[in-house]
Amino acid sequence: MRKKLRTIIFGIDTPAGRRFDIILLWAILLSVSVVMLESVDAIYDRYHEILDMLEWFFTIIFTIEYILRVYAAENRWKYITSFYGIIDLVSTVPSYIGLFVSGTRPLLILRAFRFLRIFRILNLSKYMRSSQNIILGLKESKNKIIVFMIAVLTVVMIIGALMYIIEGEEHGFTSIPHSIYWAIVTITTVGYGDISPETPLGQFLASALMLIGYAIIAVPSGIITSSVINRGNKTKLSGILCPRCKTQVLHPDANYCYKCGEKLDE
Amino acid sequence: MRKKLRTIIFGIDTPAGRRFDIILLWAILLSVSVVMLESVDAIYDRYHEILDMLEWFFTIIFTIEYILRVYAAENRWKYITSFYGIIDLVSTVPSYIGLFVSGTRPLLILRAFRFLRIFRILNLSKYMRSSQNIILGLKESKNKIIVFMIAVLTVVMIIGALMYIIEGEEHGFTSIPHSIYWAIVTITTVGYGDISPETPLGQFLASALMLIGYAIIAVPSGIITSSVINRGNKTKLSGILCPRCKTQVLHPDANYCYKCGEKLDE
Amino acid sequence: MRKKLRTIIFGIDTPAGRRFDIILLWAILLSVSVVMLESVDAIYDRYHEILDMLEWFFTIIFTIEYILRVYAAENRWKYITSFYGIIDLVSTVPSYIGLFVSGTRPLLILRAFRFLRIFRILNLSKYMRSSQNIILGLKESKNKIIVFMIAVLTVVMIIGALMYIIEGEEHGFTSIPHSIYWAIVTITTVGYGDISPETPLGQFLASALMLIGYAIIAVPSGIITSSVINRGNKTKLSGILCPRCKTQVLHPDANYCYKCGEKLDE
Amino acid sequence: MRKKLRTIIFGIDTPAGRRFDIILLWAILLSVSVVMLESVDAIYDRYHEILDMLEWFFTIIFTIEYILRVYAAENRWKYITSFYGIIDLVSTVPSYIGLFVSGTRPLLILRAFRFLRIFRILNLSKYMRSSQNIILGLKESKNKIIVFMIAVLTVVMIIGALMYIIEGEEHGFTSIPHSIYWAIVTITTVGYGDISPETPLGQFLASALMLIGYAIIAVPSGIITSSVINRGNKTKLSGILCPRCKTQVLHPDANYCYKCGEKLDE
Repeated sequence: MRKKLRTIIFGIDTPAGRRFDIILLWAILLSVSVVMLESVDAIYDRYHEILDMLEWFFTIIFTIEYILRVYAAENRWKYITSFYGIIDLVSTVPSYIGLFVSGTRPLLILRAFRFLRIFRILNLSKYMRSSQNIILGLKESKNKIIVFMIAVLTVVMIIGALMYIIEGEEHGFTSIPHSIYWAIVTITTVGYGDISPETPLGQFLASALMLIGYAIIAVPSGIITSSVINRGNKTKLSGILCPRCKTQVLHPDANYCYKCGEKLDE
Repeated sequence: MRKKLRTIIFGIDTPAGRRFDIILLWAILLSVSVVMLESVDAIYDRYHEILDMLEWFFTIIFTIEYILRVYAAENRWKYITSFYGIIDLVSTVPSYIGLFVSGTRPLLILRAFRFLRIFRILNLSKYMRSSQNIILGLKESKNKIIVFMIAVLTVVMIIGALMYIIEGEEHGFTSIPHSIYWAIVTITTVGYGDISPETPLGQFLASALMLIGYAIIAVPSGIITSSVINRGNKTKLSGILCPRCKTQVLHPDANYCYKCGEKLDE
Repeated sequence: MRKKLRTIIFGIDTPAGRRFDIILLWAILLSVSVVMLESVDAIYDRYHEILDMLEWFFTIIFTIEYILRVYAAENRWKYITSFYGIIDLVSTVPSYIGLFVSGTRPLLILRAFRFLRIFRILNLSKYMRSSQNIILGLKESKNKIIVFMIAVLTVVMIIGALMYIIEGEEHGFTSIPHSIYWAIVTITTVGYGDISPETPLGQFLASALMLIGYAIIAVPSGIITSSVINRGNKTKLSGILCPRCKTQVLHPDANYCYKCGEKLDE
Repeated sequence: MRKKLRTIIFGIDTPAGRRFDIILLWAILLSVSVVMLESVDAIYDRYHEILDMLEWFFTIIFTIEYILRVYAAENRWKYITSFYGIIDLVSTVPSYIGLFVSGTRPLLILRAFRFLRIFRILNLSKYMRSSQNIILGLKESKNKIIVFMIAVLTVVMIIGALMYIIEGEEHGFTSIPHSIYWAIVTITTVGYGDISPETPLGQFLASALMLIGYAIIAVPSGIITSSVINRGNKTKLSGILCPRCKTQVLHPDANYCYKCGEKLDE
């Protein structure tokens, strides 16, 4: 029976397993919506009874699901310490904490993390291959992105401190960390406008920072694009080696070597 | 006579058909301008007679055009349910609704959709091939973009809820959906500044969100660029057609068909 | 003498011609700075005598230069109607207009256009080839960019009108053109915040618009990147055709065919 | 003894040298944090004694380190005038200046520059190769980026001046430099909103500027991406070395050296 439960809960190959996952996704989506609606005062005031009831309904559902998962898992400890296992636990606990500690209800939004389970459900489909390509591309360019980020952080630190000296507290640059916050808002081109330079020198420096941000946004773009393209090329250029003339035949479905006409068994 | 009408209204090969389409484009452009100008109080107060007249003039013109299109269409039902057929109807009806329901006038802007007809007119020209390449490139990268969007939405949901807890209602983060709105404004680097974090911890989290947004904007860029480049490469690598098996041999220096082993004379 | 003048003024090969152009660039830079400084009230109030004098000094200098250019040009009419000829005239005339019409002084900033002359001076250097590559790349992707721009304009028109209906005049969306202005501010991720949606539905639509803007900014990036890369490839892949085996030898400096060893005369 | 000191301070190959560098990095990080915290009034008021003490502690540590570096350096003058040598000096001096000139304390943030030393420590690892690739890519596209920046600056200058004429001082466009600042804020899509156009014509021009900014941000992206991709290709296309003329033959299927005609056995 435990094995049958496992195929339903963890499996995605059987119709039952698939149906279970789709129902689960809808439950996650609905419970996340409930948490969101609860936070809107106008809605909570009018419907708080229904919302609270739904809230507890989903909490119980997810608690039962978590217990079943632990029960059905082949290697229980491995499931509990796995990525999805931790998310499942973390998204169930806050409701119970809410019974003792007030103000923790919004933590329920952590259930949104469970939505990542969608990638598991689409596991065998073409979606996964796409996301895998992106993930591999990002992994490959991780080092370059770290170098880029250190450089950006050094720039915002220095310019933040300079702006703190130039503009001073009377123009909203109340401390160096606050000025660094402004520099990040500016270099990423977000630009809230809650703090903005008012002295000519400050505006000049800010302009320089913006142009830097505008130019270097191309750097991560270049890094990731080139690694995604290279990844695509690698997948394509696997090829077969011709046994007679040793030419690398690039077409994955080739029957004959295009150079010497040798028949390729493969 | 119906056939002749069809070549004029639907055709773009004859001079008459071309002239009809160009006049139509101008009529659409003018009628859209009229709707825009009507919404400006200062202009409407002074010229409302002329504008109302023009408004009805275009409505009647487009009504007649729609009737003629239905009359002349080879397959009437197919036209009515086609993309352009629905747009044509939707852009004519609001004027008549406006007679009975007040406040629906701005809906007339839906006529702007008709402007997409410009792509039909440029159908046979080089413009179409360009747009086709973009559309194919976007179609190819659709899955990857969906994966990317789900990831972005999960991030803004979690960070939105965290900011709701950290900043609270007194700093403008009045509900989770509102905080999520703020997170989207921030991660897309729009940054209105109508809501902005005021606590140090909130500003730190906001900075992290900005840097994430700044770095991952490169992801869709990388996806689309690589797919457009690949599309370009495919078009270029047309190669030689094998005379025996009709396979397209991509290698420009192939001596033998890689599929059937046929010798290529080139 | 006219010929000698021509080599100095138009030429960039002789030391005298080079020196003339560099002095001219500095004069343009200085005169643009003077126009800028004049517009700052605090500076103008204190130094208006010197600034006015400098202003007229540069006007006279540029007038003389323009007359000399017309005099020295090989084909006078061709120079006057050329790109640089028009810029030279346009940047000199406003000073004289300023004698009769007040408030036109800021037009002097049109002199900044003359700064484009820097590209002429760097004509023979590597700078030009770089800019040529960009210009050719942009030219190639012109059609695609137009299609993209029409699509973006249609989107902002429709969403602008929808927001005008949803948000209405009380939230700052005073007319359709004004709402379209807001939509452009949003889709380009500029986000001034002078107008921002305040109803939940408006904020939802705005979020959608932002995510669209965030995703499709990758489209022009993809278009231009791919055309620049293709341009680079074309330059590289010019190659020579082997006269014996008809292989395309890609190395531009090849002496022998890499396939059959045939000597290439080039 | 001086030689032993040198391996510890400058070397990164020995365990002792490595440990020294890692301790140094932490010291830099901590001292930068102290400078930041000092600038926050609420924190400084409560902990200024500890912070001042830490401040001087790090100053003395870095002073001793600088003296040791000068003492241990193989070529002392070369170290003092090197990039890291200047940074080391510049980050130590402000503390002593602060004894005589008040208000210079924030300059201590210059210590953040020392954080760049992290690249030296990661010198031999894969991080360096990544950053080297980026740096080479940026170097290669330097000319193109300069051309792009001159074009952008010309555009913001002209549009800034036009907006100064159109909007005037009553809408916040108080001078041409200030309007140019606004234009940079807009074209880079930062969009603080501290100044924003209010006349219809101004908003129209601003919309044009935004769309220009939105489209041309793809240009540096295209430039850098293509140069990074080309750099990657160069690394990959290492090929075969001709045994006779030592030319690098790039074609993976070459039979003959394309330079000297030598037969390649492979």
